[in-house]
Amino acid sequence: MIRKWSFSPYIDTKAVVRKIESESALLPYFSHQDGKYTYRMNERTRVYGLGEQIRGINKRGWVYESYCADDPIHTEEKRSLYGAHNFILVDAGKDERFLAFFDYPAKIRFDIGYTDSDIIQVTPENDRLDLYLIEGGTLKEIIREFRSLIGRSYLPPFFAFGYGQSRWGYVKEEDIREAVSKHREAGIPLDTVYLDIDYMEDFQDFTVNKVRFPDLKALSAELKEQGIRLIPIIDAAVKVREGYSVYDEGKEKGYFCKDENGEEFVTAVWPGRSVLPDFLNEDASRWFGNQYQTLTDMGIEGFWNDMNEPALFYSDKGLKTAFEKIKTFEGKNLEVYDYFNARNVFPSLSNSKEDYTAFYHRTPEGVFNHNDVHNLYGFNMTRSASEALQRIRGQRFLLFSRASYIGAHRYGGVWTGDNHAWWSHILQSIRQMPSLNMCGFLYTGSDIGGFGGDCTRDLLLRWLSFAIFTPLMRNHSAVGTRRQEAYSFGDTEDFRDIITLRYRLLPYLYSEFMKAALKNDLYFSPLSFVYEDDEIAAEVEDQLMVGEALMIAPVYTQNVSGRMVYLPEEMTMVRMHKGEISIEELKQGHHYIHIPLSDVVFFIRKGFAIPLCDPADCTDKLDYATIQLIGTSDSYELYRDDGVSLKASLENVRIISNSRERS
Amino acid sequence: MIRKWSFSPYIDTKAVVRKIESESALLPYFSHQDGKYTYRMNERTRVYGLGEQIRGINKRGWVYESYCADDPIHTEEKRSLYGAHNFILVDAGKDERFLAFFDYPAKIRFDIGYTDSDIIQVTPENDRLDLYLIEGGTLKEIIREFRSLIGRSYLPPFFAFGYGQSRWGYVKEEDIREAVSKHREAGIPLDTVYLDIDYMEDFQDFTVNKVRFPDLKALSAELKEQGIRLIPIIDAAVKVREGYSVYDEGKEKGYFCKDENGEEFVTAVWPGRSVLPDFLNEDASRWFGNQYQTLTDMGIEGFWNDMNEPALFYSDKGLKTAFEKIKTFEGKNLEVYDYFNARNVFPSLSNSKEDYTAFYHRTPEGVFNHNDVHNLYGFNMTRSASEALQRIRGQRFLLFSRASYIGAHRYGGVWTGDNHAWWSHILQSIRQMPSLNMCGFLYTGSDIGGFGGDCTRDLLLRWLSFAIFTPLMRNHSAVGTRRQEAYSFGDTEDFRDIITLRYRLLPYLYSEFMKAALKNDLYFSPLSFVYEDDEIAAEVEDQLMVGEALMIAPVYTQNVSGRMVYLPEEMTMVRMHKGEISIEELKQGHHYIHIPLSDVVFFIRKGFAIPLCDPADCTDKLDYATIQLIGTSDSYELYRDDGVSLKASLENVRIISNSRERS
Repeated sequence: MIRKWSFSPYIDTKAVVRKIESESALLPYFSHQDGKYTYRMNERTRVYGLGEQIRGINKRGWVYESYCADDPIHTEEKRSLYGAHNFILVDAGKDERFLAFFDYPAKIRFDIGYTDSDIIQVTPENDRLDLYLIEGGTLKEIIREFRSLIGRSYLPPFFAFGYGQSRWGYVKEEDIREAVSKHREAGIPLDTVYLDIDYMEDFQDFTVNKVRFPDLKALSAELKEQGIRLIPIIDAAVKVREGYSVYDEGKEKGYFCKDENGEEFVTAVWPGRSVLPDFLNEDASRWFGNQYQTLTDMGIEGFWNDMNEPALFYSDKGLKTAFEKIKTFEGKNLEVYDYFNARNVFPSLSNSKEDYTAFYHRTPEGVFNHNDVHNLYGFNMTRSASEALQRIRGQRFLLFSRASYIGAHRYGGVWTGDNHAWWSHILQSIRQMPSLNMCGFLYTGSDIGGFGGDCTRDLLLRWLSFAIFTPLMRNHSAVGTRRQEAYSFGDTEDFRDIITLRYRLLPYLYSEFMKAALKNDLYFSPLSFVYEDDEIAAEVEDQLMVGEALMIAPVYTQNVSGRMVYLPEEMTMVRMHKGEISIEELKQGHHYIHIPLSDVVFFIRKGFAIPLCDPADCTDKLDYATIQLIGTSDSYELYRDDGVSLKASLENVRIISNSRERS
Repeated sequence: MIRKWSFSPYIDTKAVVRKIESESALLPYFSHQDGKYTYRMNERTRVYGLGEQIRGINKRGWVYESYCADDPIHTEEKRSLYGAHNFILVDAGKDERFLAFFDYPAKIRFDIGYTDSDIIQVTPENDRLDLYLIEGGTLKEIIREFRSLIGRSYLPPFFAFGYGQSRWGYVKEEDIREAVSKHREAGIPLDTVYLDIDYMEDFQDFTVNKVRFPDLKALSAELKEQGIRLIPIIDAAVKVREGYSVYDEGKEKGYFCKDENGEEFVTAVWPGRSVLPDFLNEDASRWFGNQYQTLTDMGIEGFWNDMNEPALFYSDKGLKTAFEKIKTFEGKNLEVYDYFNARNVFPSLSNSKEDYTAFYHRTPEGVFNHNDVHNLYGFNMTRSASEALQRIRGQRFLLFSRASYIGAHRYGGVWTGDNHAWWSHILQSIRQMPSLNMCGFLYTGSDIGGFGGDCTRDLLLRWLSFAIFTPLMRNHSAVGTRRQEAYSFGDTEDFRDIITLRYRLLPYLYSEFMKAALKNDLYFSPLSFVYEDDEIAAEVEDQLMVGEALMIAPVYTQNVSGRMVYLPEEMTMVRMHKGEISIEELKQGHHYIHIPLSDVVFFIRKGFAIPLCDPADCTDKLDYATIQLIGTSDSYELYRDDGVSLKASLENVRIISNSRERS
């Protein structure tokens, strides 16, 4: 019944897991009827997983779908975001813990106690899936097994851990220079500035607008002098324009997805009418990846891949049908439901089922309708870029993507897409981090301050106070929203102090990231993964463990000067106030902690220490010789490397201690 | 500079407040320049008010607009919901507390520390406003002054405090009977069933579909035998249809709003092409109110007024323009921004500025463009109904509205409109209650389980556990969403236990409601209004005081079995578990309280008691002789009356005690 889905990216894995090849092998967990996999939960069962999905760390009580979606409104009732991360980690108590990974590239539904509070039901559209079950051990051990199955996480360069400034709407090089100089003037550290779609010529991939960015190579070099890297966006779709070499060449070689008649499938995205590179075709994928060299030749060391669900605004065919349809309503006395239908004609063109079933991929396994492999598109775009950049640069590069699938974590990071300047989205982001980590996306973060909507000073300060712990730390916002650079709210001292703390923490954050990546471990973990017997910790979803030694408890509520924090054990509270660090020992239990907007507070586990270094305004200038340990241990396992080599290993870990550093 | 806005509903008030008649009278609070009223906050200033508006109880940190809006997506970035409640209560410490009420019926903007964290700036569109300032005393005292200015709150009948079941989609009388019988079979108390737009003939106000509801009068009588009242919806707009008497008569008398040419302004809402009764015209208002008699003659004792912002789907003129506009895009190679414009042509027809400025009202003060008095429309519809029902029935009646303005609280309640089945909307509802109470809307509640989106069992249980304390307690949902009646999730015991507790609490809830209404006091209040010197209580926005004796701390997070609760003083914790009540004394401070889905927990202040009576399945059957007091006092001031008389006074309060009851 479970047919080998030979398009799986995991066919070469050597990990020891149960790949389910027969009905009986599903037992004792799942029953399998009518194409549905069913599992009965007990009252206390917690269900982790699903990567980027919305809602809680415990996914129980909702129904989710994996069908990579360009949906910018991340409210609670949504069922799919940009990533398809088809795994659940079920914790029904020490005697029944298992992870189920449904390797399946089409739409699949996870009903986790939604229809019936006690039932998990997983429903793929057909039976072409591979199911893996991983059992036994602690939650962390199960995750490590899973991660060894799906492969090692992407390793970003050290500079990728610096603070990044981005905005859709930096339309010319002066805008970039202004962003840099205003950070520098205010003493706010900065490592990267992102180039959104505005830098391109008519939104054509791998082109640069010569009027607004007359010499990107020179600009890149000039900024690198100041420790700043430029990170351009690359969108999935390629503009239809004769004379545009990427289009011409791709068309000539047949590298774009085709419709049922063998014609290029024409959709429209930012560049207007566009075609879709067939990233599932190995030649096309390699060819597209090679295009990145146009920009790396200008000194570019990193990219973000976007619109790769793929997002489709409309298709030629859809638009034609829409104009025909809308005319049928004209001149009539529109009853109200007719009006709603009319109103929906154009909005329903975007990301439509009609379009997603209208084109095909030529893969090594044969031709597939897009809908049947939808969730692999963004994954393969990231793989295309990652493999090319490795070929081209021979060094680490910054790369993250919007759409993804399990396995994409080997090629790049992800960010959580087009969120909003909502307080609830700080909390949403907190909850997405450990779930993304579980399936290997360690290099991740959310758009700080929110992509859509208008940010406020306090929202940005609180968001930053959390985001200084996320590996990808980027302030990004949409055109038309209120400006939200860290210098946009008048006084800059609080922003400077918080972002500076990020840099002082980098020896710790980078070490913990690299150790987690190399050990298939978690960088962010829920408290319940560390304190397995603590029933209160099990329900805490607004605090996280960061690496081995830290716990954070971010403030995500407006107009408060503190919050309750639960300490599962005795801890050292570290407070940054106006750039000064102070510590206090706190007992196990609940504490009301005063945290004004200017302060950052975090906690060090008993028996652990963390390294703090002196401030610097970019990663290039960080001085590890200034490291001091704080906490209740005399030593720390520091990972350190050159920050760029592709080769990275745990051999780069050495034990440091205060006494040695001081001597 | 501040011209008397003679259309104000407050011209007859005798309250002692400062009506601002000169620039100097604004001092020391506001400066007034370029039409903006500006106030500088200190770091700890808290700003209450704005009634129904979204976000926190403390409104600081966002910008709000009053422009009654039919917007069903209540996310954090919204600036206006259905009500226009133009007051702020500023608490800058004991020495500087004041309430400012901007009596202004057009669009007005409240920037409460959004643009600049420390600045309040209030910007009306023009200077035709009356500004009142109320100073001095405690927060509660200021609110009482304000309430005595704006008039006594509407008093609903006793049955209006029962549990109500509603759903858009009960299309025939069998649906109603089924809802009733399923509640009764499960032992779930019920007092009201609501009739959404489905009961009407083609959505025509004051008509009943004869096929699906062949004899509403008989149905009403049959249900009243079981203690159930039917509560129909009335929408603001009237269908354009010759032969439909309401339309014919209103047209003949000139009672509908007219355009600049003196023709009826034709919009479209649920009934298709419709006209708008001119509720600001006294004759028209009285005439429309009289129509309710069609339904009261069938035994109906209550109504909800809806779509009265007024919501406009489209207008004749707008639709014509839209069809013309969409054609200009056809056949072109649509660049992406053209496509967005095309996509927006039809959706932007709804509630458009073009339509809101295209019609006029004939008021006693002259003719006004709708836009200049927009916020008075729903208010006057509710006044129309309320005054008519008082004339017709000579008794109390159930009435609440979606749109409102300050003063509408004298005529009916409000509900918080088209919310969603989101956990965050439990919290939003908790925060709206005290703010609505401040401006006199005591009879209020939110759609339990959420109007839009799909509800889950746990969401409904948690929402009910809060809503048993809201005067209006109604489960309502939209057509197409998952069924969410209390019997829709399999087992019904937990639902029954929670809703039964509501009925056991009714002697307390009704007493506290009536005392608050008659004393111009708060039914729901923020903790900070009671514990003025408690800096922790000041920031608690997920707990509320209910009446004088109770504090609630609802659970609004999924997958938790408890929450932290802050007790500003020693209190008695009351727990309902499987229908049984137990109590426990708790000390001042933070407590982690275990609250499984089956339990309801609340707190009684030290030195207070509350009455609890025996369960009943409808309000008609509640037996006050079964009252027992619980808490740390021997007595309680019980308000009791016949539940229907228009005349209500504090003379109906008597002191009861356990000893007396038991003797």
